Amino acid sequence: MAGAARTGVAIVGLGGAVATTAVAGVEMMKLGAMGRDGLPFADAEGLVPYTSMVFAGWDVDGDDLAKAAHGHRVLDPRQIEVVGPALAGIEPWPAVADPEYCRNARGNNLVAVAALRDRVAHIAEDLRRFRVEQDLDHLVVVNLASTERWPNLTLPALATVEGFEKALDVDDAAITPGMVYAYAAITEGCPYINFTPSAAADVPALQELAVARGVPVAGKDGKTGQTMMKTVLAPAFRSRALTVDGWYSTNILGNRDGEILDDPASLSSKVNTKGSVLDDILGYKVDDHVVRIDYYRPRGDEKEAWDNIDLVGFLGQKMQVKVDFMCRDSVLAAPLVLELVRLVVEAQRRGEGGAQEQLGYFFKAPVTRDGSRPEHALHVQEKVLREWIGAGAP
Amino acid sequence: MAGAARTGVAIVGLGGAVATTAVAGVEMMKLGAMGRDGLPFADAEGLVPYTSMVFAGWDVDGDDLAKAAHGHRVLDPRQIEVVGPALAGIEPWPAVADPEYCRNARGNNLVAVAALRDRVAHIAEDLRRFRVEQDLDHLVVVNLASTERWPNLTLPALATVEGFEKALDVDDAAITPGMVYAYAAITEGCPYINFTPSAAADVPALQELAVARGVPVAGKDGKTGQTMMKTVLAPAFRSRALTVDGWYSTNILGNRDGEILDDPASLSSKVNTKGSVLDDILGYKVDDHVVRIDYYRPRGDEKEAWDNIDLVGFLGQKMQVKVDFMCRDSVLAAPLVLELVRLVVEAQRRGEGGAQEQLGYFFKAPVTRDGSRPEHALHVQEKVLREWIGAGAP
Amino acid sequence: MAGAARTGVAIVGLGGAVATTAVAGVEMMKLGAMGRDGLPFADAEGLVPYTSMVFAGWDVDGDDLAKAAHGHRVLDPRQIEVVGPALAGIEPWPAVADPEYCRNARGNNLVAVAALRDRVAHIAEDLRRFRVEQDLDHLVVVNLASTERWPNLTLPALATVEGFEKALDVDDAAITPGMVYAYAAITEGCPYINFTPSAAADVPALQELAVARGVPVAGKDGKTGQTMMKTVLAPAFRSRALTVDGWYSTNILGNRDGEILDDPASLSSKVNTKGSVLDDILGYKVDDHVVRIDYYRPRGDEKEAWDNIDLVGFLGQKMQVKVDFMCRDSVLAAPLVLELVRLVVEAQRRGEGGAQEQLGYFFKAPVTRDGSRPEHALHVQEKVLREWIGAGAP
Amino acid sequence: MAGAARTGVAIVGLGGAVATTAVAGVEMMKLGAMGRDGLPFADAEGLVPYTSMVFAGWDVDGDDLAKAAHGHRVLDPRQIEVVGPALAGIEPWPAVADPEYCRNARGNNLVAVAALRDRVAHIAEDLRRFRVEQDLDHLVVVNLASTERWPNLTLPALATVEGFEKALDVDDAAITPGMVYAYAAITEGCPYINFTPSAAADVPALQELAVARGVPVAGKDGKTGQTMMKTVLAPAFRSRALTVDGWYSTNILGNRDGEILDDPASLSSKVNTKGSVLDDILGYKVDDHVVRIDYYRPRGDEKEAWDNIDLVGFLGQKMQVKVDFMCRDSVLAAPLVLELVRLVVEAQRRGEGGAQEQLGYFFKAPVTRDGSRPEHALHVQEKVLREWIGAGAP
Repeated sequence: MAGAARTGVAIVGLGGAVATTAVAGVEMMKLGAMGRDGLPFADAEGLVPYTSMVFAGWDVDGDDLAKAAHGHRVLDPRQIEVVGPALAGIEPWPAVADPEYCRNARGNNLVAVAALRDRVAHIAEDLRRFRVEQDLDHLVVVNLASTERWPNLTLPALATVEGFEKALDVDDAAITPGMVYAYAAITEGCPYINFTPSAAADVPALQELAVARGVPVAGKDGKTGQTMMKTVLAPAFRSRALTVDGWYSTNILGNRDGEILDDPASLSSKVNTKGSVLDDILGYKVDDHVVRIDYYRPRGDEKEAWDNIDLVGFLGQKMQVKVDFMCRDSVLAAPLVLELVRLVVEAQRRGEGGAQEQLGYFFKAPVTRDGSRPEHALHVQEKVLREWIGAGAP
Repeated sequence: MAGAARTGVAIVGLGGAVATTAVAGVEMMKLGAMGRDGLPFADAEGLVPYTSMVFAGWDVDGDDLAKAAHGHRVLDPRQIEVVGPALAGIEPWPAVADPEYCRNARGNNLVAVAALRDRVAHIAEDLRRFRVEQDLDHLVVVNLASTERWPNLTLPALATVEGFEKALDVDDAAITPGMVYAYAAITEGCPYINFTPSAAADVPALQELAVARGVPVAGKDGKTGQTMMKTVLAPAFRSRALTVDGWYSTNILGNRDGEILDDPASLSSKVNTKGSVLDDILGYKVDDHVVRIDYYRPRGDEKEAWDNIDLVGFLGQKMQVKVDFMCRDSVLAAPLVLELVRLVVEAQRRGEGGAQEQLGYFFKAPVTRDGSRPEHALHVQEKVLREWIGAGAP
Repeated sequence: MAGAARTGVAIVGLGGAVATTAVAGVEMMKLGAMGRDGLPFADAEGLVPYTSMVFAGWDVDGDDLAKAAHGHRVLDPRQIEVVGPALAGIEPWPAVADPEYCRNARGNNLVAVAALRDRVAHIAEDLRRFRVEQDLDHLVVVNLASTERWPNLTLPALATVEGFEKALDVDDAAITPGMVYAYAAITEGCPYINFTPSAAADVPALQELAVARGVPVAGKDGKTGQTMMKTVLAPAFRSRALTVDGWYSTNILGNRDGEILDDPASLSSKVNTKGSVLDDILGYKVDDHVVRIDYYRPRGDEKEAWDNIDLVGFLGQKMQVKVDFMCRDSVLAAPLVLELVRLVVEAQRRGEGGAQEQLGYFFKAPVTRDGSRPEHALHVQEKVLREWIGAGAP
Repeated sequence: MAGAARTGVAIVGLGGAVATTAVAGVEMMKLGAMGRDGLPFADAEGLVPYTSMVFAGWDVDGDDLAKAAHGHRVLDPRQIEVVGPALAGIEPWPAVADPEYCRNARGNNLVAVAALRDRVAHIAEDLRRFRVEQDLDHLVVVNLASTERWPNLTLPALATVEGFEKALDVDDAAITPGMVYAYAAITEGCPYINFTPSAAADVPALQELAVARGVPVAGKDGKTGQTMMKTVLAPAFRSRALTVDGWYSTNILGNRDGEILDDPASLSSKVNTKGSVLDDILGYKVDDHVVRIDYYRPRGDEKEAWDNIDLVGFLGQKMQVKVDFMCRDSVLAAPLVLELVRLVVEAQRRGEGGAQEQLGYFFKAPVTRDGSRPEHALHVQEKVLREWIGAGAP
């Protein structure tokens, strides 16, 4: 029976704002201190309950989650206190990080192993121990780490499982820490979710591996704020035959995520995943589509996304829409992460391995199995997902 | 064959900004001076072509449409000049108006008949003459007149066809000018479109009549600017389980429409149709839903709609969205009117009389046959409509 | 020596958000828990120190100020706790209120006296007792009560001191509660500040009385948010010869102030004081100047003021400015109230009675002695005030 | 007598949007087709009349001004037609440009001279010919060219007149085209205005030269849109003791100016002049002051500047202001250029050479004679200037 199952969630970046928010929410639900408001699929039948989840994971910062949550200032101190003991009891495992791939990240809760194969073994060992100690029925790995710089996808190391395995053997620099986690997860049979813009499991070699092993993988880059709005508004403009002449998007944010995006190499990964969404939805190329992300400390975790959209309507007449979304990045992301965990567990239960196309609803850059352009319109994605959920309902 | 058909469009409020814009667009298409950009169903098969349309109608202002178009300042003077001769050749017929129902409207191109039955006969005569003189295959009546004050729908005069007929006989004040036009249209077998917030055909008596005569009727209140955006954003907030704590909407506009809404009685019709949209989509009542419409001359036809939306997300955290839509009311409305004409002609061709529920996509307050709550989400409405169109495709 | 003086501040509306915020700030300064940030005239020499102030006053709600402060949610609960004992020790005196003048106000901490003369005596007695018990060197009365409906200023009762005195004798309904407090303050020799839009001391009779008694009076309607911005931007537009074609201002607020302004009679007082500012600064009439104030609960004390300004520049070209001020009404008002107290004490020290024109910097509707149009530009007002302060510096 | 004087205006960048707008305005005034609306000092006494101005200048594009004006789309075609013959009669002289200094500029109306001394001679010859042919009483040179990359100001070539002269002799690359024009102007005794962010006359060598020759020079970087607003709002925040915690400014613009700023080297000149304004006004350093300028074509000359300001008020409470200025760059700039011409002529009449500090009102980076920090607050600058004008009034 689903209710009694225990669902392990091993998070890469466990001490971050999104992860601590997600964990705090589940712990509140366990205490009955909150209901299921804010969770999009709370009413879906047959999925594992939120309260079945137990959390662990890796972080370069070793602070326990109570301390981490206070530092992020996402939740009110009084909220954190409610679940203080539960959060304080979770300390991140040492992380396998590589400063080369993510320049502005820092911390000293690190694994002292250099060889890639040793790193894989270390991560696998963490997962096995977690599974046994917690008597888990399911174990999901979620990537919530900082954005890595974008790899060269044409390298042989990333093209096939065989190439990837060889590259691991020789410590090929083409393999990023994100890929190491993803590889370890898949080989351990753990469904893998990539909520970041990093390549991670979204390279041909690991997609092939996931299919071969029958392990669900989902990604990439959680669709929370500005891009979510874009995938809501653009379909409407198309529906009304309003031509998008230009779309200027700027984001200001002051959390750790923003700081890391101040590194141009990391930023480009992020901007990449935001890029093609608009053209794909509209069916034509918007030449003047500008996306800016600026680190701006006064805002903390309270991101602000300002959009200006230039439209051309009937008889060539011009109109403008401005949207200012003053959002909470982690508050938008955390419930999506929880839903993703439940949905990849369900996929595994149904025996559906490889890229989970029906989960495009959650991502800026949804992975497709055949490399075709994904659907981006939020309402279409939701429909696809609800039908998939319904198909498995008891 | 559809291509060769002649489609008459008789507009109540022919000299207004929406009507002149729609007419100018069709005349440009006839000249090849513009394509079909900005028309949502340009690619739908089987509908009458835009260029099959010939226009006539009534207005309290007798100026020809070239003069009227210059006055509205919606189109660029050079655009109007392209179709100047065609527009100058169209002069509104004298209107049947009643100052009691619309206080800020003015003009002196009026019919000197007082009795309701005489008014009906006069309108019917206009329609018959138009049909013959232009050798029309189809004739559609569109209400683009100023908003009338809202009637008391519980009066016997509006409840049944029989009651309505009797009320006409005794010049019952319950019957508004908008109803007189709608009655005449239906009895003449002309599909009737109500793009205004006035009751017009949306009273039980006339709905019953339309069914009895097998005449398509569609309405009411064109969904162009702020409400259109609301029906795009609200489904997304629901999808993401973001609770709407409050929604403050203000509109500033300076065209004739705005001036008439300065009359509180007319305004209430408008605000009514905007009201329930949000609650219906979200599935709960938003207590702090405020809608303001203010007459503000500097903006002319360039309406501005500013929205502030207060959201509550996961763990009770608050967020805000601001949307500023600097739109052109007539530019948004005109293509919708042209599509509606094509679609009610198609409905008549299929023999489908009465309220056209599949046209909810176009309206703030879509009429339903059984009085149930209509669907408001734009993307759902579009899907319903495209399926209806597809069902009739050759 | 100023430093050792004790400055009593008797506030009408002591339990309100502005008053509790001001009191909390002074109590924090007494504890050394905050500096003088946020106080515009912190560096002015010769004024009484903030920490010389002791607070008392009247309110229809009898809750102590700690309880009141928690209820207003202006300050963080942890901030309130710092000064909790001090705030808890202040309980409002029973108020002299009249529901006729302020319909949406409520509370049961009321004085059971009906005759106007008795009310005056009661207030005067409160002031004398406060002065003695606290051994005060100065005593200032500040009106921070809810807005009253606007009186008919042409009545004989309000035109002269003699008329006013007679009206008191016969309980003339022309005299509002706000006037009763102002009269009592002036006759007791207490400088009087009207931070509200109510008429209060701003009627000819009381202005005459203040001059006769040599008591400083200042008002009216604190210039905090939107109007403050207006008096900053409008002078700049004038300076650059940008013509204001229209100015649309809307405010949404959810605190007690907002609720009271839902009463149209109270609202009109408020809108009155906002009205002429713009024309006076620009030197011409802006026909399309619209000011809206809407009660909208999700915002609480966090008022939002949205302005759209239509400008016409060189060669008739049009431009627009939008300003969205997401402000904290009480946070903006409280330091102004504290400065006003220090400045009227200084005026009294200098022997300058009657309307304090140099204090226009603080008000939306600055009182002038001869009834001439006041200066509204913020930077000019600041210059006038700083010169006045400098003229009295030791 | 001033009225009869002829005032030559030789513009570097004559074909640009600002210059053509300014010329069109003056030509309209000559025809009586417009008044003096939009001109800030229209009422100042003693200055040369606008209609005394005759225009010439250089541009890399040789199109006459009528053609140029149509291309810029700043003015309505009908407005341009009114002054069509006057504009068509003005063709730019070939320009001395250097692609090294301004990478995105292009055109082929160029002088075929390479040596710096020859370039100076060429420009001087243009000025002398203009003076004689038009029988000019005054001749002013205005820099409205595209932004050049910023020079190394510590080079000896730019430090003294002597060093500059030697550098001219050896074609030192330290000397930019902007400096060549400025040098020629000053040596010809023509007051020189630098409305661009380029260094031009704002190097020690040329400042020294202007003082030595007694020639007025004014600059730099016209204060039109976002920075103008910043110098209006920041003094108000300071006045109210609201601490600026962060200020995020982004600009989108699609005219030639924007395209050139897409070159990072040119951009840095622009961002430089915008940078210190805020700190100078506030009296403290705003660490999170971000300024973005993005080229975005849909907007054309209709620049949009969006600002987000984070404020901290009394008791550390946070507030935000958003300003969206949808401005017309050229419409704001053109009248300022015309006023500057009149004011440097007046300075020359009074015998006041060197940097004109009283003209700081017009500039983002006002030059000071002793290198001290300039005043930036708009209202203070206006006061200084009006006093200077008044001091010379008859």
